[in-house]
Amino acid sequence: MKNNFEIKKTDEKARLGEYTTAHGSFQTPNFMPVGTKASVKGIDTDSLEELGSQIMLVNTYHLWLRPGHKTISSLGGIHKFADWKGPILSDSGGFQVFSLKQIRELSEEGVKFKSHLDGTNKFLTPELAVEIQETLGVDIAMVLDECPPGDCSHDYAEKSLGLTYRWAKRCIEAKTRQNMSLFGITQGGIFPDLRKRAAAEIGELDFEGVAIGGLSVGEPKEQMYEVLSYHPQQLPNKKIRYLMGVGTPEDLVEAIRNGVDLFDCVMPTRSGRFGRAYISGQKPYINIKNAEHALSDLPLDEDCSCKACRKYSRAYINHMFKAREMLGPILMSIHNLHFYMNLMKAVREAIRLGKFEEFYKKEKVRWE
Amino acid sequence: MKNNFEIKKTDEKARLGEYTTAHGSFQTPNFMPVGTKASVKGIDTDSLEELGSQIMLVNTYHLWLRPGHKTISSLGGIHKFADWKGPILSDSGGFQVFSLKQIRELSEEGVKFKSHLDGTNKFLTPELAVEIQETLGVDIAMVLDECPPGDCSHDYAEKSLGLTYRWAKRCIEAKTRQNMSLFGITQGGIFPDLRKRAAAEIGELDFEGVAIGGLSVGEPKEQMYEVLSYHPQQLPNKKIRYLMGVGTPEDLVEAIRNGVDLFDCVMPTRSGRFGRAYISGQKPYINIKNAEHALSDLPLDEDCSCKACRKYSRAYINHMFKAREMLGPILMSIHNLHFYMNLMKAVREAIRLGKFEEFYKKEKVRWE
Repeated sequence: MKNNFEIKKTDEKARLGEYTTAHGSFQTPNFMPVGTKASVKGIDTDSLEELGSQIMLVNTYHLWLRPGHKTISSLGGIHKFADWKGPILSDSGGFQVFSLKQIRELSEEGVKFKSHLDGTNKFLTPELAVEIQETLGVDIAMVLDECPPGDCSHDYAEKSLGLTYRWAKRCIEAKTRQNMSLFGITQGGIFPDLRKRAAAEIGELDFEGVAIGGLSVGEPKEQMYEVLSYHPQQLPNKKIRYLMGVGTPEDLVEAIRNGVDLFDCVMPTRSGRFGRAYISGQKPYINIKNAEHALSDLPLDEDCSCKACRKYSRAYINHMFKAREMLGPILMSIHNLHFYMNLMKAVREAIRLGKFEEFYKKEKVRWE
Repeated sequence: MKNNFEIKKTDEKARLGEYTTAHGSFQTPNFMPVGTKASVKGIDTDSLEELGSQIMLVNTYHLWLRPGHKTISSLGGIHKFADWKGPILSDSGGFQVFSLKQIRELSEEGVKFKSHLDGTNKFLTPELAVEIQETLGVDIAMVLDECPPGDCSHDYAEKSLGLTYRWAKRCIEAKTRQNMSLFGITQGGIFPDLRKRAAAEIGELDFEGVAIGGLSVGEPKEQMYEVLSYHPQQLPNKKIRYLMGVGTPEDLVEAIRNGVDLFDCVMPTRSGRFGRAYISGQKPYINIKNAEHALSDLPLDEDCSCKACRKYSRAYINHMFKAREMLGPILMSIHNLHFYMNLMKAVREAIRLGKFEEFYKKEKVRWE
């Protein structure tokens, strides 16, 4: 196993680091914008770069079904296809498949399901998940895991953990590309004994990074924070730690304080499209669709230097939403991604200065 | 009347000119992207500037109903609201009102209709149309006119012409802002005698420009071209001539050859959102949604330097449309606007060189 991850400084449990891939490196802590179907909704990659994104995530499930990993490969691979020159991480497709509750059938071998696009039968195995990601040409691939729901029983979670472990080993066996990292995933729901076991089992395998799966999947926030209070520390110290699919700015600083390095979430773009703008100051966010903004000549955030805030007023963006103009969701997505990128930059600076705890407390107060 | 329009060169009937407003000047022939509700759909004004747009159009009807001309005025006016520093022209709202066939009532005084947003009764008069546009703060306002359908009778068109003339005079009376131009509009459908009368009547009034209305409103293309063959020449030679709501690249060069200077149309953005990309070469356009593009690593147009063509393949944009990703319509709108802007640039260069007829013939061949 190559050591692509370098920890440059720690501040209590928070870590400042850098991860290197075949398409360049990214600093940690960091946040990956989600390009589900090979585009971050409404935002071209020039804008993504301007926003300071250092790594982008794509969804294996969606690209496998359409346009197909082989099509993308024949067009020169995912970097050329999506015109993103930096690092790309793909999920394994597992999370999406296990969200299709009605139409899947799980076995030791893999998971059978019907495509949400045309109803055709599909069969995803750990080996195929790795093959698809290798064919896409991503820099970091994820193992196929089972993602149990947030309210599942200890019994179910325990059985599931065994399967996820056996699948993880099969993924390592299946991997052929040397210039692609493979990350393992820990499950175990909200159960301390299972999280401990998952950390030990996945941590010992030959992965270049370890992801925490199965959080923010329906469990109460307090339970997620409880797991975050001990689980990241159970993971190998030298490997990058990636918390999948989380979350709000508050969740991110909470996880970083517990030693997490990397995140992805649709939150900034999706909630932006629905009208939520994350802001600095006393309140953590506003809803731009609210009538109170209809006459406001303030920018979304007075302390923000993003394109939306430099150019347009709250009243204008409020009008864009009322008039159902595409520019509304676009400007909100740009603003929120800028907010997340700036948050990560500020976090890294705080760790560098040994002042993360101070930063953390300031952020937490805004969410009370 | 100020003379804001300077003709710098003519090439047969085609004219090269420059029109000056309080927010800068634009060269002619030129094309105005349509920012119906104060945004060109999916495109921010930084991008619009990059595309080479020199003037933008907004719709009085839409902005009057929402967010309201007074709201926009209280927010600093339309330039600040939409963040467009260059010239802005607004239509009068007439075209939209007369498209609401079922719910309008026409009288000498004005036109009564129900708002498409909330069904409330509205009454638009020539005086109010001017007041709204003055309040918005546009650089060029249009008179309120009646727009009869493309298949109306000579009788109807003749009566309508009288009303449009009387309304035109009332608009001039109503105008108070010195730093705003007011353009008249000729109607008369496809009837040579009425077009001649409209040109004489409107041409004599104290307008800074004259627009040709009532074309591309349902009449056959041949009839529109017939009117274009004589009507622009009936308009005052020294005033800018604006053909409203037209059209395809072919229509534009046809009109320019007959002495038209200015255009607006939703065609590049709307048809782009529906998958049509205008291209150079033998064929005038492609439909990016067609299966033949799904595996193509060509750009939309090999001779194009727009962002969509520099960054993405036809296969990628085809995928964006299939996957219903916003980026598809956005990239297509950018490409088509770039195509229109470049067409106007090339037209101006051809006139400058005295080679417009050659340019015209090359363009026409592509549409046969």
